[in-house]
Amino acid sequence: MFAKETYVQRRALLRQSIGSGLLLFLGNDDQGLNYEDNTFRYRQDSTFLYFFGLSFAGLSAVIDIDEEREIIFGDELTIDHIVWMGTQPTLHEKAALVGISETRPSAELAVYLQKAAQQGRAIHYLPPYRPEHRLKLMEWLGIAPARQEGSIPFIRAVVAQRNYKSEEEIAEIERACDVTADMHIAAMKCIRPGMYEYEVVAEMNRVAQMNNCECSFPTIATINGQTLHNHYHGHLIKSGDLFLIDAGAELPSGYCGDMSSTIPADKEFTPRQRAAYEIQNAMHLAAVAALRPGIPYMEVYDLSAKVMVEGLKELGLMKGNAEDAVREGAHALFYPHGLGHMMGLDVHDMENLGELWVGYNGQPKSTQFGRKSQRLAIPLEPGFVFTVEPGIYFIPELIDLWKSQQKFTDFINYNKVEEYRHLGGIRNEEDYLITPDGARRLGKKIPLTPEEVMAIRE
Amino acid sequence: MFAKETYVQRRALLRQSIGSGLLLFLGNDDQGLNYEDNTFRYRQDSTFLYFFGLSFAGLSAVIDIDEEREIIFGDELTIDHIVWMGTQPTLHEKAALVGISETRPSAELAVYLQKAAQQGRAIHYLPPYRPEHRLKLMEWLGIAPARQEGSIPFIRAVVAQRNYKSEEEIAEIERACDVTADMHIAAMKCIRPGMYEYEVVAEMNRVAQMNNCECSFPTIATINGQTLHNHYHGHLIKSGDLFLIDAGAELPSGYCGDMSSTIPADKEFTPRQRAAYEIQNAMHLAAVAALRPGIPYMEVYDLSAKVMVEGLKELGLMKGNAEDAVREGAHALFYPHGLGHMMGLDVHDMENLGELWVGYNGQPKSTQFGRKSQRLAIPLEPGFVFTVEPGIYFIPELIDLWKSQQKFTDFINYNKVEEYRHLGGIRNEEDYLITPDGARRLGKKIPLTPEEVMAIRE
Repeated sequence: MFAKETYVQRRALLRQSIGSGLLLFLGNDDQGLNYEDNTFRYRQDSTFLYFFGLSFAGLSAVIDIDEEREIIFGDELTIDHIVWMGTQPTLHEKAALVGISETRPSAELAVYLQKAAQQGRAIHYLPPYRPEHRLKLMEWLGIAPARQEGSIPFIRAVVAQRNYKSEEEIAEIERACDVTADMHIAAMKCIRPGMYEYEVVAEMNRVAQMNNCECSFPTIATINGQTLHNHYHGHLIKSGDLFLIDAGAELPSGYCGDMSSTIPADKEFTPRQRAAYEIQNAMHLAAVAALRPGIPYMEVYDLSAKVMVEGLKELGLMKGNAEDAVREGAHALFYPHGLGHMMGLDVHDMENLGELWVGYNGQPKSTQFGRKSQRLAIPLEPGFVFTVEPGIYFIPELIDLWKSQQKFTDFINYNKVEEYRHLGGIRNEEDYLITPDGARRLGKKIPLTPEEVMAIRE
Repeated sequence: MFAKETYVQRRALLRQSIGSGLLLFLGNDDQGLNYEDNTFRYRQDSTFLYFFGLSFAGLSAVIDIDEEREIIFGDELTIDHIVWMGTQPTLHEKAALVGISETRPSAELAVYLQKAAQQGRAIHYLPPYRPEHRLKLMEWLGIAPARQEGSIPFIRAVVAQRNYKSEEEIAEIERACDVTADMHIAAMKCIRPGMYEYEVVAEMNRVAQMNNCECSFPTIATINGQTLHNHYHGHLIKSGDLFLIDAGAELPSGYCGDMSSTIPADKEFTPRQRAAYEIQNAMHLAAVAALRPGIPYMEVYDLSAKVMVEGLKELGLMKGNAEDAVREGAHALFYPHGLGHMMGLDVHDMENLGELWVGYNGQPKSTQFGRKSQRLAIPLEPGFVFTVEPGIYFIPELIDLWKSQQKFTDFINYNKVEEYRHLGGIRNEEDYLITPDGARRLGKKIPLTPEEVMAIRE
């Protein structure tokens, strides 16, 4: 948690930018796996964390702009709670830590909201992303789940603040990135043929936990890197496999890191692995070199895709004009995702508020396969923190589908592609901050070039 | 997953015991932490697992007893799913693994249920324990969340099957118990003053993950063992601390282990720690010796409490007649929880169906502090699998409260209790199966006696 002034200032700015009405913040509750009391790890809502800093279940908050009140709603612990869950500061004490003097029992929230609604005042809320949020909005505001869309002025005002990371936020993110790098380095050092994927995961989780961190998202650690979000860890690692890792640490404060790395199971790349890896590496370096204030991130994505097409042309897998191939979407057979996303209190920062507002400033998104997965398109600005993570994949199901549809035969040599069919996937990912005159990598360096990757195995 | 015949037989028995109507099974969905796509680890509902074996998000099932149909509702993967999440068997192939031939798209479920309701047929469902269940029951059956109580005949029929573990279930549970024991042994070996609690957690998680297991519940690993469910792991372990661990492994099949252990941070117990530990050990051994078919588990709880009172009388912390003290609830100052709970696919097996049905056969529960937390009261039967976990705690907040209320001054020497005020908590826990002629511990042995605990540190 930061000093109380941070939260006071953030809320003042938010009140100012919305101007009137009432802002409702839903804190997250505990969630049961297989019964109510067997809970997943607790994760507070990130916007609640940003403006109210308190990571406890069972809280809600209201900023009543019209009446100049800021209230945290929650309940004090009973003796049963204390016996089972331990003692905590009182609600009033917790609230004081973030500059809030007014606290109320949870049961008063619905009444407060209903009174405001009767007065005809606007009640702003953010889009629900958990079923518990939907139940609360239905109960408190009488809005059916299908119509709970959230308030666009509220979304835009939150994005306008959270998109720009402060010095104290950057220091936290950099700490998360350092732990993230250590997770990758430890994993890359231990991978050998004959291990199971879950043994690599065990090593990464150990590093995170030894630093009092959680994983910021479900770890990817797989010999099937061609599956973009593969969370299965039951395979045996075999000689000849490429191993893809995408994992990150989350600090107790909620700030995240997110990196990817790819390493052969053997001491050396096979020639085809090396050829594909070098293209991915060139994509990565070209994207990083292009980072600066003002450049639209969609332009950096296009650049990374063009570098890939040029490389795959040299290998004989693609043909034709690279710019045309990327514009038409032929590259997405090998690169079906975006170049990166905002990162902060969420690993995909503010994804719950909608990519349209976070990464596109409200402008319509492309529906083209591959390009539609680009989460960040707008010009980069100082204070933005985001990932750079181009990739190259050989996805048998997608190859077969496109080949059967004779898709982009002007750009793709399907016969040559077959030679790489079982190569898997390659992705490397680093985290960057845009500075006034360029960009800076956050956190320790992880192996990136083929030589660096081989050197870690010594 | 077991052989398909297991699931076919379980469902046949269930149909028979309910006789008519329609049984609705809600499979669990993925749950987002801080946005929808950043999910917690996936956990299928245990009753769904028991009768339908499939651990995939997005499934529901119906057993239509009247029309002799068993249907799994779900949706096939799109190419976008395959690219992002990997390929899977088709819904039809998955269903065939558990002996189901009829599958339908999710969208048809509401229609199916509504038609049955119009025909005036009974639709049985189990009590919801996740907000997502409440939303589905509201949408599909038109029942408001506050009125979603579940069907008692359905609950009782499920409990009547799941309470008795089969040989193949016992083998799974024993595997989970072996991993659980390894987690405890690894932790006990590594604990030293100067470590952080989370470093011990890291070691336990590593052992679980190396065995391709998850934790069956949030790990307790704390110098504040007097807080029964303490999930904070940020403290530094100091010389003189007692360290309490309560943790278990969950296999990919969903079966669980659950053990507790207590170890001093130093190489030796202090005299007070040793004295309290020996009493807890005597409680544990007395409870285990009493296990046999037919004995009500509440009687075993009473026995463990009486052993504690006798021990605390010798130390001068309690006085008076032990039987009276336990009947009136005076023991609960030091032993505020139950002796154990059923264990199987859930670590508190079927807790979502209600303790009243699982542990009390529908008979009313005590409201007495301490005794009300006994989760299992009924006579033990062969096939029952449950925990034995007596404990002794010194909870400053509770001591102060009872002392200020002059509670049970005939039984408690509050002045003497003050000498132990900062001792913390002691709990040991093992998992047992009732056999036709007694009971059998499941899984490897963990250190239990003071001597065994000291020996593990060599």
